[in-house]
Amino acid sequence: MPRLIAASAPSNAYGRAVRALILNAAGELALVDDQPDPIPSAAEALIHVKRAGICDTDLQLVRGYAGFAGVLGHEFVGVVDQADPELAGQRVVADINIGCGACPRCSHGDGHHCPDRTTLGIRSRPGCFADRVAIPRRNLVRVPDSVDDDLAVFAEPVAAALHVLDELDPRAAGERIDVLGDGKLGLLISLALAASGRQVRTIGHHRAKLELAAAAGVAATALEHELAASDQRSSAVVVEATGHPSGLARALWLARPRGLVILKTTSAAPIPVDLSAIVVNELRVVGSRCGDMHRAVDLLAQQRLDPRPMIAATMALAQAPAALEHAGQRGVLKVLLRM
Amino acid sequence: MPRLIAASAPSNAYGRAVRALILNAAGELALVDDQPDPIPSAAEALIHVKRAGICDTDLQLVRGYAGFAGVLGHEFVGVVDQADPELAGQRVVADINIGCGACPRCSHGDGHHCPDRTTLGIRSRPGCFADRVAIPRRNLVRVPDSVDDDLAVFAEPVAAALHVLDELDPRAAGERIDVLGDGKLGLLISLALAASGRQVRTIGHHRAKLELAAAAGVAATALEHELAASDQRSSAVVVEATGHPSGLARALWLARPRGLVILKTTSAAPIPVDLSAIVVNELRVVGSRCGDMHRAVDLLAQQRLDPRPMIAATMALAQAPAALEHAGQRGVLKVLLRM
Repeated sequence: MPRLIAASAPSNAYGRAVRALILNAAGELALVDDQPDPIPSAAEALIHVKRAGICDTDLQLVRGYAGFAGVLGHEFVGVVDQADPELAGQRVVADINIGCGACPRCSHGDGHHCPDRTTLGIRSRPGCFADRVAIPRRNLVRVPDSVDDDLAVFAEPVAAALHVLDELDPRAAGERIDVLGDGKLGLLISLALAASGRQVRTIGHHRAKLELAAAAGVAATALEHELAASDQRSSAVVVEATGHPSGLARALWLARPRGLVILKTTSAAPIPVDLSAIVVNELRVVGSRCGDMHRAVDLLAQQRLDPRPMIAATMALAQAPAALEHAGQRGVLKVLLRM
Repeated sequence: MPRLIAASAPSNAYGRAVRALILNAAGELALVDDQPDPIPSAAEALIHVKRAGICDTDLQLVRGYAGFAGVLGHEFVGVVDQADPELAGQRVVADINIGCGACPRCSHGDGHHCPDRTTLGIRSRPGCFADRVAIPRRNLVRVPDSVDDDLAVFAEPVAAALHVLDELDPRAAGERIDVLGDGKLGLLISLALAASGRQVRTIGHHRAKLELAAAAGVAATALEHELAASDQRSSAVVVEATGHPSGLARALWLARPRGLVILKTTSAAPIPVDLSAIVVNELRVVGSRCGDMHRAVDLLAQQRLDPRPMIAATMALAQAPAALEHAGQRGVLKVLLRM
């Protein structure tokens, strides 16, 4: 990890040092102010981060998920450095997966599954909880002026939310999607799918959060009510977005025979699963990770989706450790960092 | 359970008693010889069972899976009673799922997932490890003379094996299917898919069984070799048919990103699963249960599939408890009962 946490190294050719939130190999978080400025390669742009969002995955990484160490963070909006030969001054978000560009996966346009990919702040690449970050130009997506920073910072999780659409049977576009979970992941998926014209129902157990979904025009129902009222499996599509080990079992219980369960929760620990429920009811359980950033930016630009009511706090990068702690509190929705 | 295990009740209007292998609610197996003869309803036929097959599901039921009590058995070939007004003397096999015929599922032709279905020897209906069994006529499939009893008794598991085809992307018909498991389930799936023209590889660790697959023209490879040789996920399709709790983890390990894992193993106990492997690699995990009996009988009649080398023993119904014990021994393939 010398490139990532050599906090005592001299600043680089750009002559500057940056502040960054570092997760070290011992699982300790530290804000440093002498991280060497990233040096973009010829294919990369240097981005000045303006806003970054804290995601449950960041909290999982701190708990040891995926074995990552380095600069955390993968949700951001920023501005390309003025010295950039191609994109100087552009406001951008980014696809966080960086494929090798040469393997069969990449050749087929699927860098998200390149075996040698890096992923911003998650896998072998410094993240965006820093003043500046270097990212390949081909991963950048320009943000229209109509989409402000507080909206644009949601582009990455909105892309992941909309990726649910890629798993749905196009012949069943009118079918209701049940989103299990009213945390930041579940709510954003609910809002994004509803903004895309889908019939959505959020199932959770936090009244204030369900009201937030309802205010965005999404049907919302209490989990307790659903578990008590249903005497048979009835959901055609369940998105498991609880972030909780019990989520899958509940999703399997809600799904009707031959139904679809889309898994969004990642977690460090193996979870006991009743496989016979999957076999006997012939359920389809599909994992879903990152999505198309262009689709997300387009939806945000259409003013049909506004997740800003989910922002619980915006804190300075200097307060990043406290911001992560706040984001991990029960019931707290989106916490943003401003640089 | 009075209808099923009232072993001391007088024989019924047919004036006969039948022998049957009973699993009682305490999980005890007993062969009785005074079970009341089944009385077919107007929609049912009375079948004289000729051969029955012991399946891993039967062994699981004895261990408490699905909470079944009653006459065991769901794989059979038999002859319709001579007194039957429609089908007298026909040699038949049967779809083992009996839907209510009235619910929305049944109305859409999906009695396999009728919430009120019964399933022969598995769910609320006496099975075929008995001299005679009553089954709805609409569930029966006639067996051509060219298919002998030892072949026909495989129709039900062959139908389940071929049901794997229903989950495959028709655009990828040339893609290899990796079948994980060389027990009776895995081997039969391998043989049936190969007989259907698919490229199949059986992955197991029993040399004699892998040789049996190879003799049927299926590529076979040792699990140890596969685990050692592969340094990356490469299977487009993995059928998990190990019958073992470790099977799913191995299947998830073998599957390439966006790959398909078809689950065939049912088991009584929840199994720890690394859900993040499913999410990060965006795998599809699909449960697969029973299949189309007509398709199975057609394949058997075409003489392209001969699972008879899998028969380890054929034992008299009177020896049924010993036969189940034999079938549960390590390495024993198909054990048949003859009536």
